[in-house]
Amino acid sequence: MDSIAPSFVVNPSELADCLSALRASTPLIQCITNTVVTNFTANVLLAAGASPAMADLPGEAGDFAAIASATLVNLGTPYAEQRTGAFEAVSAANRAGTPWVLDPVAIGALKLRTEMAFKLRDLTPTVIRGNASEILVLADSGTGGRGVDATDSVGTAASHARNLALKSGAVIAVSGPQDLVTDGTRSVLVHGGSELLTQVTGGGCALGAICAAFIAVHDDAFIATVAAHAFYSAAAERAAGISNGPGSFAVNFIDALHQIDAQELKNKAVLSS
Amino acid sequence: MDSIAPSFVVNPSELADCLSALRASTPLIQCITNTVVTNFTANVLLAAGASPAMADLPGEAGDFAAIASATLVNLGTPYAEQRTGAFEAVSAANRAGTPWVLDPVAIGALKLRTEMAFKLRDLTPTVIRGNASEILVLADSGTGGRGVDATDSVGTAASHARNLALKSGAVIAVSGPQDLVTDGTRSVLVHGGSELLTQVTGGGCALGAICAAFIAVHDDAFIATVAAHAFYSAAAERAAGISNGPGSFAVNFIDALHQIDAQELKNKAVLSS
Amino acid sequence: MDSIAPSFVVNPSELADCLSALRASTPLIQCITNTVVTNFTANVLLAAGASPAMADLPGEAGDFAAIASATLVNLGTPYAEQRTGAFEAVSAANRAGTPWVLDPVAIGALKLRTEMAFKLRDLTPTVIRGNASEILVLADSGTGGRGVDATDSVGTAASHARNLALKSGAVIAVSGPQDLVTDGTRSVLVHGGSELLTQVTGGGCALGAICAAFIAVHDDAFIATVAAHAFYSAAAERAAGISNGPGSFAVNFIDALHQIDAQELKNKAVLSS
Repeated sequence: MDSIAPSFVVNPSELADCLSALRASTPLIQCITNTVVTNFTANVLLAAGASPAMADLPGEAGDFAAIASATLVNLGTPYAEQRTGAFEAVSAANRAGTPWVLDPVAIGALKLRTEMAFKLRDLTPTVIRGNASEILVLADSGTGGRGVDATDSVGTAASHARNLALKSGAVIAVSGPQDLVTDGTRSVLVHGGSELLTQVTGGGCALGAICAAFIAVHDDAFIATVAAHAFYSAAAERAAGISNGPGSFAVNFIDALHQIDAQELKNKAVLSS
Repeated sequence: MDSIAPSFVVNPSELADCLSALRASTPLIQCITNTVVTNFTANVLLAAGASPAMADLPGEAGDFAAIASATLVNLGTPYAEQRTGAFEAVSAANRAGTPWVLDPVAIGALKLRTEMAFKLRDLTPTVIRGNASEILVLADSGTGGRGVDATDSVGTAASHARNLALKSGAVIAVSGPQDLVTDGTRSVLVHGGSELLTQVTGGGCALGAICAAFIAVHDDAFIATVAAHAFYSAAAERAAGISNGPGSFAVNFIDALHQIDAQELKNKAVLSS
Repeated sequence: MDSIAPSFVVNPSELADCLSALRASTPLIQCITNTVVTNFTANVLLAAGASPAMADLPGEAGDFAAIASATLVNLGTPYAEQRTGAFEAVSAANRAGTPWVLDPVAIGALKLRTEMAFKLRDLTPTVIRGNASEILVLADSGTGGRGVDATDSVGTAASHARNLALKSGAVIAVSGPQDLVTDGTRSVLVHGGSELLTQVTGGGCALGAICAAFIAVHDDAFIATVAAHAFYSAAAERAAGISNGPGSFAVNFIDALHQIDAQELKNKAVLSS
């Protein structure tokens, strides 16, 4: 892996504090996301302790972004109405100070969403989360993966992610066997998780929603994003240990997100820098 | 809780008869509902013994409402085509005598669906089902909840629900820790259920679909709606007893809807007035 | 059952080879499908070893069909944008030589999708998969079923399916208690499966996607379609044996699709002609 300098050490107690804050406040998370994963995303947020709302209609999305605790914009199936709703929500979120996450699903080969992702990148997202191929495209350094699958490694994307963070002002999260989180200055790798997450549709998309839930309750978006990833990985690892395949894993994963508390997150988080 | 006068005593055998009728006739339920819960709603209906069909397209929704056993109109994600399809379906349902359920999801703060809900309220729905905050908005007595969550209690909504029933001619069902069902004259509370239902997305929306399935097979919509709620609560309670969290609960709940028969419903229903 | 002449004997080793090829190549399957079943369909494909992508937008669907291993066009909820995207995808698929599957959900009574299905039938689909009532409509010999449920038997549809195969050049698959697969010359019945598949929404729709995954990896679309059905039935049978109802069945079915390997498929496939 390329150098992910400078290194940074996160105190596990800070991660635990983020989860405690989430559980204490039940943040209202506006999800503008794709039709494949709306159900799973909503259940992931509910299990974690947040309140999801899929308000993406033009004429409603802006009003909702102003009252939401955080907003997710995921480009998995950007139909015309949702495209309009997404920009309406982002404008309102920026005016109201609502933090928001951009998840540029499958950009590169697909024109419409790629153009949309570049416009959104320049509208000051708080966090950008994607796989290595998606992040490379947004960093003007790649042509995209294969469908929703990355064809580049997290290591290859590391220096580009750091540059993208500095240029966009967003925290960048690159998902893979280990997840890289960087704000351009601070960078950490989150270990753990399970390959089974890649065999459940929405495994990545719902992580974007969890990032939104964590940045809603903690002012330092870098720490919040690391906490979101550590929480997600800990739940995946717990679920994988008792599952027979991707079907039972998805069920156990939702249970695990509900069961893990701040103390367990503090003990289970494995980070390196 | 406000007075829910006059009280009314439902014979549990009537509830059991409704479920037997549902199982015997496999009613065809047209669901015009939101993209988050279509899958869960269809599986809930199938498990209960009904046949779901998500026919909401302009040019198709009206034809389908004329042949459906009952129609559900849920406002969770009312995209432009679906809005047109919903009104087309309601017109055809009313012409054909197809009973229909209105579920005014998250009205109040969100303009577009709130206007739509008021129009639909005045088109003689057979049943209106929602949480306390949604029902208060429709009764011209509230400003809505927080996203899809109620910020008002069932007790607060009771007298307003009764008035809304008398004014609209619909049976009104208010979901909460106990569910209130009223036609303005008769009122009962349905007990039981599980808080886990609020941690699975579509827990309320699918109840609207189950109400549609029950009014499809029984002429007294008040009794049918009470039966739908008692059946749903009994299944939730059974599932909660063997679940580790919201993931396994959702799975066990579908199984329970399939397993509960008329005799068990008769024994498990807990009503008060 | 009508005569399904001439009979044809498939070597179970050929079915096993299809599954091995699928697992070795992870085909990229473009799904243009209905909003009710996108999530289940994607999880079924992932569990089987394929990579799903729900790229159905005008402006993207054509580009994606050109790079996909196979394309599925399912008419369950054909909204305006998706209708445009579907024809764009089919044109591009035909130009690029991408095989594609047509699943004419609930045609007959519903006008818009019925017209669309006839147009698509004449655009050289590789496989057409449906229930008996849907296939009879496409063969100009029926008026459709009841919602998504067949009201005709596989036996009634057999000779019409054979004629439709000869006329359209497509392999025709008719789902039912036994599944008929025919290319007009060769015909087989695939046994096994479970009635629980009819109690999970998308049980038929996801089979269309699995057909797409198998024709993506094997040149003889008839053999590939038989293999897809045998694989699906074997997984359903395995799952049914350990399930308590349709909820747990859906979970165990996804696990089973993941667990069954070529050897098990070879041993479990039950065909007759």
